[in-house]
Amino acid sequence: MNIRKGRLAKSMTSDAAEFSSSLEFDRYIFEADVKCNFAHTLMLKEENIIDGEIADKILGALTKLRESGFDALEFDYSVEDIHMAVENYVTGMIGPDAGFMHTGKSRNDQVATDIRLALRVKIIEIQIAILDFIKNIIEMAKKHTETIFVGYTHLQHAQPITFAHHLMAYAQSLKRDYNRLYDTYKRVNLNPLGSGALATTTFPINRELTTKLLGFDDILENSMDGVSSRDFIAETVFDLSMLTTTLAKIAEEMVLWSSYEFGLIQIGDDFSSTSSIMPQKKNPDIAEIARAKSTRNNGELINILTILKAIPFTYNRDLQEITPHLWNSIENSYSILKIMNDMLQTVEFNEKRGLELAGANFATATDLADLMVKEKNIPFRIAHKIVGRVVSEAVENDLAIEEINTEFIDKIAIDLDIEALNLENDLIQIALDPVSNVTLRNVPGGPSPKMVEVAIKNLEDFVNGELSKKDI
Amino acid sequence: MNIRKGRLAKSMTSDAAEFSSSLEFDRYIFEADVKCNFAHTLMLKEENIIDGEIADKILGALTKLRESGFDALEFDYSVEDIHMAVENYVTGMIGPDAGFMHTGKSRNDQVATDIRLALRVKIIEIQIAILDFIKNIIEMAKKHTETIFVGYTHLQHAQPITFAHHLMAYAQSLKRDYNRLYDTYKRVNLNPLGSGALATTTFPINRELTTKLLGFDDILENSMDGVSSRDFIAETVFDLSMLTTTLAKIAEEMVLWSSYEFGLIQIGDDFSSTSSIMPQKKNPDIAEIARAKSTRNNGELINILTILKAIPFTYNRDLQEITPHLWNSIENSYSILKIMNDMLQTVEFNEKRGLELAGANFATATDLADLMVKEKNIPFRIAHKIVGRVVSEAVENDLAIEEINTEFIDKIAIDLDIEALNLENDLIQIALDPVSNVTLRNVPGGPSPKMVEVAIKNLEDFVNGELSKKDI
Amino acid sequence: MNIRKGRLAKSMTSDAAEFSSSLEFDRYIFEADVKCNFAHTLMLKEENIIDGEIADKILGALTKLRESGFDALEFDYSVEDIHMAVENYVTGMIGPDAGFMHTGKSRNDQVATDIRLALRVKIIEIQIAILDFIKNIIEMAKKHTETIFVGYTHLQHAQPITFAHHLMAYAQSLKRDYNRLYDTYKRVNLNPLGSGALATTTFPINRELTTKLLGFDDILENSMDGVSSRDFIAETVFDLSMLTTTLAKIAEEMVLWSSYEFGLIQIGDDFSSTSSIMPQKKNPDIAEIARAKSTRNNGELINILTILKAIPFTYNRDLQEITPHLWNSIENSYSILKIMNDMLQTVEFNEKRGLELAGANFATATDLADLMVKEKNIPFRIAHKIVGRVVSEAVENDLAIEEINTEFIDKIAIDLDIEALNLENDLIQIALDPVSNVTLRNVPGGPSPKMVEVAIKNLEDFVNGELSKKDI
Amino acid sequence: MNIRKGRLAKSMTSDAAEFSSSLEFDRYIFEADVKCNFAHTLMLKEENIIDGEIADKILGALTKLRESGFDALEFDYSVEDIHMAVENYVTGMIGPDAGFMHTGKSRNDQVATDIRLALRVKIIEIQIAILDFIKNIIEMAKKHTETIFVGYTHLQHAQPITFAHHLMAYAQSLKRDYNRLYDTYKRVNLNPLGSGALATTTFPINRELTTKLLGFDDILENSMDGVSSRDFIAETVFDLSMLTTTLAKIAEEMVLWSSYEFGLIQIGDDFSSTSSIMPQKKNPDIAEIARAKSTRNNGELINILTILKAIPFTYNRDLQEITPHLWNSIENSYSILKIMNDMLQTVEFNEKRGLELAGANFATATDLADLMVKEKNIPFRIAHKIVGRVVSEAVENDLAIEEINTEFIDKIAIDLDIEALNLENDLIQIALDPVSNVTLRNVPGGPSPKMVEVAIKNLEDFVNGELSKKDI
Repeated sequence: MNIRKGRLAKSMTSDAAEFSSSLEFDRYIFEADVKCNFAHTLMLKEENIIDGEIADKILGALTKLRESGFDALEFDYSVEDIHMAVENYVTGMIGPDAGFMHTGKSRNDQVATDIRLALRVKIIEIQIAILDFIKNIIEMAKKHTETIFVGYTHLQHAQPITFAHHLMAYAQSLKRDYNRLYDTYKRVNLNPLGSGALATTTFPINRELTTKLLGFDDILENSMDGVSSRDFIAETVFDLSMLTTTLAKIAEEMVLWSSYEFGLIQIGDDFSSTSSIMPQKKNPDIAEIARAKSTRNNGELINILTILKAIPFTYNRDLQEITPHLWNSIENSYSILKIMNDMLQTVEFNEKRGLELAGANFATATDLADLMVKEKNIPFRIAHKIVGRVVSEAVENDLAIEEINTEFIDKIAIDLDIEALNLENDLIQIALDPVSNVTLRNVPGGPSPKMVEVAIKNLEDFVNGELSKKDI
Repeated sequence: MNIRKGRLAKSMTSDAAEFSSSLEFDRYIFEADVKCNFAHTLMLKEENIIDGEIADKILGALTKLRESGFDALEFDYSVEDIHMAVENYVTGMIGPDAGFMHTGKSRNDQVATDIRLALRVKIIEIQIAILDFIKNIIEMAKKHTETIFVGYTHLQHAQPITFAHHLMAYAQSLKRDYNRLYDTYKRVNLNPLGSGALATTTFPINRELTTKLLGFDDILENSMDGVSSRDFIAETVFDLSMLTTTLAKIAEEMVLWSSYEFGLIQIGDDFSSTSSIMPQKKNPDIAEIARAKSTRNNGELINILTILKAIPFTYNRDLQEITPHLWNSIENSYSILKIMNDMLQTVEFNEKRGLELAGANFATATDLADLMVKEKNIPFRIAHKIVGRVVSEAVENDLAIEEINTEFIDKIAIDLDIEALNLENDLIQIALDPVSNVTLRNVPGGPSPKMVEVAIKNLEDFVNGELSKKDI
Repeated sequence: MNIRKGRLAKSMTSDAAEFSSSLEFDRYIFEADVKCNFAHTLMLKEENIIDGEIADKILGALTKLRESGFDALEFDYSVEDIHMAVENYVTGMIGPDAGFMHTGKSRNDQVATDIRLALRVKIIEIQIAILDFIKNIIEMAKKHTETIFVGYTHLQHAQPITFAHHLMAYAQSLKRDYNRLYDTYKRVNLNPLGSGALATTTFPINRELTTKLLGFDDILENSMDGVSSRDFIAETVFDLSMLTTTLAKIAEEMVLWSSYEFGLIQIGDDFSSTSSIMPQKKNPDIAEIARAKSTRNNGELINILTILKAIPFTYNRDLQEITPHLWNSIENSYSILKIMNDMLQTVEFNEKRGLELAGANFATATDLADLMVKEKNIPFRIAHKIVGRVVSEAVENDLAIEEINTEFIDKIAIDLDIEALNLENDLIQIALDPVSNVTLRNVPGGPSPKMVEVAIKNLEDFVNGELSKKDI
Repeated sequence: MNIRKGRLAKSMTSDAAEFSSSLEFDRYIFEADVKCNFAHTLMLKEENIIDGEIADKILGALTKLRESGFDALEFDYSVEDIHMAVENYVTGMIGPDAGFMHTGKSRNDQVATDIRLALRVKIIEIQIAILDFIKNIIEMAKKHTETIFVGYTHLQHAQPITFAHHLMAYAQSLKRDYNRLYDTYKRVNLNPLGSGALATTTFPINRELTTKLLGFDDILENSMDGVSSRDFIAETVFDLSMLTTTLAKIAEEMVLWSSYEFGLIQIGDDFSSTSSIMPQKKNPDIAEIARAKSTRNNGELINILTILKAIPFTYNRDLQEITPHLWNSIENSYSILKIMNDMLQTVEFNEKRGLELAGANFATATDLADLMVKEKNIPFRIAHKIVGRVVSEAVENDLAIEEINTEFIDKIAIDLDIEALNLENDLIQIALDPVSNVTLRNVPGGPSPKMVEVAIKNLEDFVNGELSKKDI
């Protein structure tokens, strides 16, 4: 059936047909399209809008199609899209009565419905993959709650932490990425079916029934909005941009930490490659590619927002070009998420190097200043000033931590016109020791083993709770 | 107080100081910074971490500063940022004891806290402005539930609607823009204070107390995440991008409809301008500028996502450059929202032209096809084919709607090898009449006056409910 | 041959291999890769770096491969990329001596060379397609140098022009798009071969010879830059963004002008479609899709710039992810260019409607003001003020242009406290007549038939000149 | 003078006036606007279009204004823009005859002309700053042609280079950024003046004369294109995006290299900062901020391209919103360029660490493979395999370079079923020594001191040649 024939004298040129075809991406909505036709036809039957027997024939053909799958459809360029292909299939099975399934329905509301149905499945897939990644991070973190490492600010050593605490920062970011998709889902799972071309229909259709049959939470309450709104797509792709921004950050650290200079991790050989010319190389290619692919969602998002810019109500064919960006973004995000999850599990952390870096370069200097505040009751800013000078002289003269003692500190304090502090050497060494230092940072959200265990427990409960919901 | 002196031998060059200064945008977080220092100091006092008397002096100075306002601060480039300026103010009032207010706190957690505090105020301001816009749209819609207009797809006449129905499509989009900010707010209103530089502190601070004092919903549960996560900013700016995408769409229609060719609306003279050379011009400048400015959020969003790309944990100075994009985006969105709201209220809809367009060009053809389905029980696709030909012959021969009658239709049906339908002329004319047509589209979400009234009622209830919450 | 075996203990997982594979896009550089290997091997032979007989065998195998084409290669995921596939092919033909073709060459310089070779072909294809589009626009313009139309500013009638003049504005934009690619070509056509992995080689290779053999203009003079610079890709994609911005503008006008309200053009049925539910519709789908697809280059550009953001020297695997965005952008641009060219040729301009719009709504008011300046020597601003009032009163009272006469104007002038002008009625009518008006705008760059003919001649000479260069 | 009064009954609301005002950014085109009015008026006089005496009065007033500067203008919101402000100034000086300076000119062509005039000055400023940066890089490179360093791929050690060679890679990128602006300049320096509102004018203006007076290379040959094309802005901003992409890459390396782990450079204290809480910190803040600010041009570019998306011909007020993005981008780029230039000059390279890294981790392995090819005439791929295993065993057993000898290699070769190679120990050690290794990479574009000196000489000649052109 070719709907052009009534109105237009000529077929599209084959170039134009190819240019305007959505078929390449229509496979994403095949199941949804069948489902949507099924629910609509069932409703038409229930409401006595179409003949019951005809409805049953249509429903039978659709059931058959669902079983046979996408490949049962026939496509050529004269078939504009999946909706026509499905109709042609049903017509092939039961003859022109197939046309009744479009009573009170348009491609405009149908495609909007299909995309929402297909997308909600994908969102849940991504969410489960996020939860799985978090679980694996938690497992790794459990092994490293006492593995000393150094936290960086400005890529400079800042303060001692544990590797587990660092890993849990990944997990917390991912949890927000998960929750964002959760909120978006609410705006995806709304029913545009019944909006018709843009103005509903004069047939007495039952939108509540199709809403229920299709598992939507509610109807979209304005038919013009129903056929033309695509903000739910932009929002999903933004969520995915945010997710891959998190993943790119992790990937960046994998690249950095596996460098000779950092020497902190070994990525599994099965996630590395070598060079065609430099036989010594072991390169973190997967992390690099993940880093690069992660930007793709930004581009897709800009495409979507730009397509949406200033096109008037209601449906414009421009909207068709939005969905490929969505599916690309979904597939891209899923594959990065999956590979990062797999790769991280092969990572071995060099505990010796972690400890070494935590002890080098005065990452505990803050605690020396804190000690002065606590013991000698001087304002933090004064303590900061003394310790600043302590560090810069120690660096200049290449002093070891053991050489930072009462005498050395007091000489500097006096030099700065501050009184001698006379701090005990024992306390100084405890403050400067990364291990005791981490243990003392025992504030909620802090790196002490105890606090990280609490955080692990909380997140594990969250993940398990969410996973149990998805099982339903 | 200059914190550099301990560690670094030289001051920044004045160019470098200017280049790295955040002062231009720090005014946005002034109140939040004072508030944050106040809550932190109060907590230090309550927990006996610092001396009670000193704490009271600090709290007094901060109260004074809050009353005196931003202009009480002194800035020069040696003052790196607002935090230093506030500290300098307090020091000026009470001397070096001011330094105690930074016990167990860093600029890293402070700035993250400040931004969240300041942002939540701005989000609510934008939300209220959205609700106000929706209210005004509803008021306008109430007057136009029976004003016939034509709905467009592909910028071609599609089906008759009412102007109220069109306006309510605006309102539904804006409602989602509102709700999106609502979800984002949950991720904004979390407390990073206590994260310290990145690893909390060894002082026994009470994060629950500052959370309560500052009105946050919860703490951020990982200190490294606390100081370095900025996804809440990206998310807000995305929400604003989506909001201004809605506004640009409305602006586009204002431009289009005020053209000579459409002739549908008059925008108030106070929102129009003329030409320096063409004295006849009345130009929709405000709508055009709103359309153009609406894209700015897209650019800001890309900036933020790109800054965040692949920078390792935790705080990097790059993060400072994110906030200006946030504040720009907030101000930009607010001003577009405000002006579009004001402008729309001056718009006069040309009812005569609306009706004329609805009747021209066969926007009711679907209903003629639906009529064939209902009356003659033929499949929709067959009816579509007949009507397609009816229209193309009518266009070709410049026929009036009255000339589409039983005879004309049957001639075409037979021509297409379909049987004569023998539809009654009365029914044909009712189907083709835009007014009766709209009235019959009486499905939830549809354009019939009755259904639009329902939609208005529902949305009005929503808006009033939300506004009453904001009043608290 | 698998280069991993020496260094790495395990193969990549199949997911990792798929994730990191570039094969999907490697077909774009197949011919270039063979060409590059050929030139490099020939150079190695000429410089006696490898044995002449071995070289001849390699060259023979490469020649064979070029003839057999891409499908002669075998791929599985253990084959990392096209370079390995080509090597495997040659090894299959002549045994392990194939390995000599990589003497003094790396995949890093090879892939950079391949992309440049493949891209310069694509640039020229796009350039030729632009020239072809310009030619067709010129042909259309030639027929319309006297077809009166109205020029718009702010989508409001501004001043009369001709349709040819409007078309020539398209052509001038496209000419710049063409020239921009011309400048980019200079930066594409440079030779990185010989840069090796990043530090050239200790073999005495002859870079001048490969430069000559491969038709490059010059070498890239720093080997680290040679393997890692991709600005030539970003620049090309920007040029294409600019090109499709031009095309989107044209597409927008096609959509607008084919609306019922504008009624200015008919797009050929072979570039239109109808609706599944609204049989009367004739929709400008191809123009809409072109408008939407045109934004894709913006997204690709952002992807490329974001991938390039802050990755250190030299080759990082991230770079691999840049090229797909390039090829997507090329294909996308080419297809839009082609379809817009084809579509525009089916467009029929409604001359009657063009003239009608030019006469309506006082598009000639500027000339009435100019007339006052010329005849009565009053400052333009005074004239502007009078004409502004003339128009607003005429609009209010629905006056025809013929009713704007000496008397009417003088009444208004006096009302504004300006003297009566006593302009002759004949002159007034000439000034207000769109046809004479256009003819009088006889300044270089202006819409008068004479000037447009000059512009056509100039551009035609340019296009023919360029096309003759491409023939070489 | 308020041009609204003729046509519109009401003033803009003050919000609308503020919303639509361009005044904030108009200072960028003040000088250009005066210049443009001057040239236009002079032409009107020369062509006897306006009275000579009046012209002289206008020219006098404009001269006076140029001398008095921007602050001589008066602004309030009723003054729409700079053009009105200038006119008001002239009117204040000479009375309503000021109006004659707008004969045959519109704000549409004037603003396009102004932007082009102002932009070409800015482009040259940026170009000179680039040349200055390149000069300083060259000076630094001259001191380091024998400073051994390691080249990275995938952030892994690849092959030995010199620090000078690395620096020259920066310089080559910058050279292309310079040349790109050069090409853009050609498309900027074209004259739209005389295009009028969009259709030129009926006054016999002389566009050649204004072209000459204003120093443009040519006229824009279509008036509609003249007033509405802004591709020259997008192109400039893209060039700046590319430039700051280069700068971000350099900034990234500064951050990386100044980390404790890399330990390769010291950035001057005057371009570093410390922490408010961690007294030991020396942070590369300027480099980080430069890295972050560098992305801003990407955002501005997207804004510009999105504003341009699908707005029809000719001037639309949207265009006004493009220029602020241009000026922001210009200022942003200039400040990053300047600060990076200043900062780089304070960088001290740690030569000992450079050499150490070059010797560590088998960066010379390629040369061991090359040696096998040269001495033993085995295919490179076989040599690669042997060396791959040599490295992996050496890493595993923590062998020093001296322990890689004839015997060790042959054991591995035999293990791999390849014959013993019996390479001389002396040759092995030369191949593995980074210093001799670099010296031998003596191919054009290579890192050998000799070749880098050639590259330095070539680039120095280029820079001096360009600078001498700019002096004129």
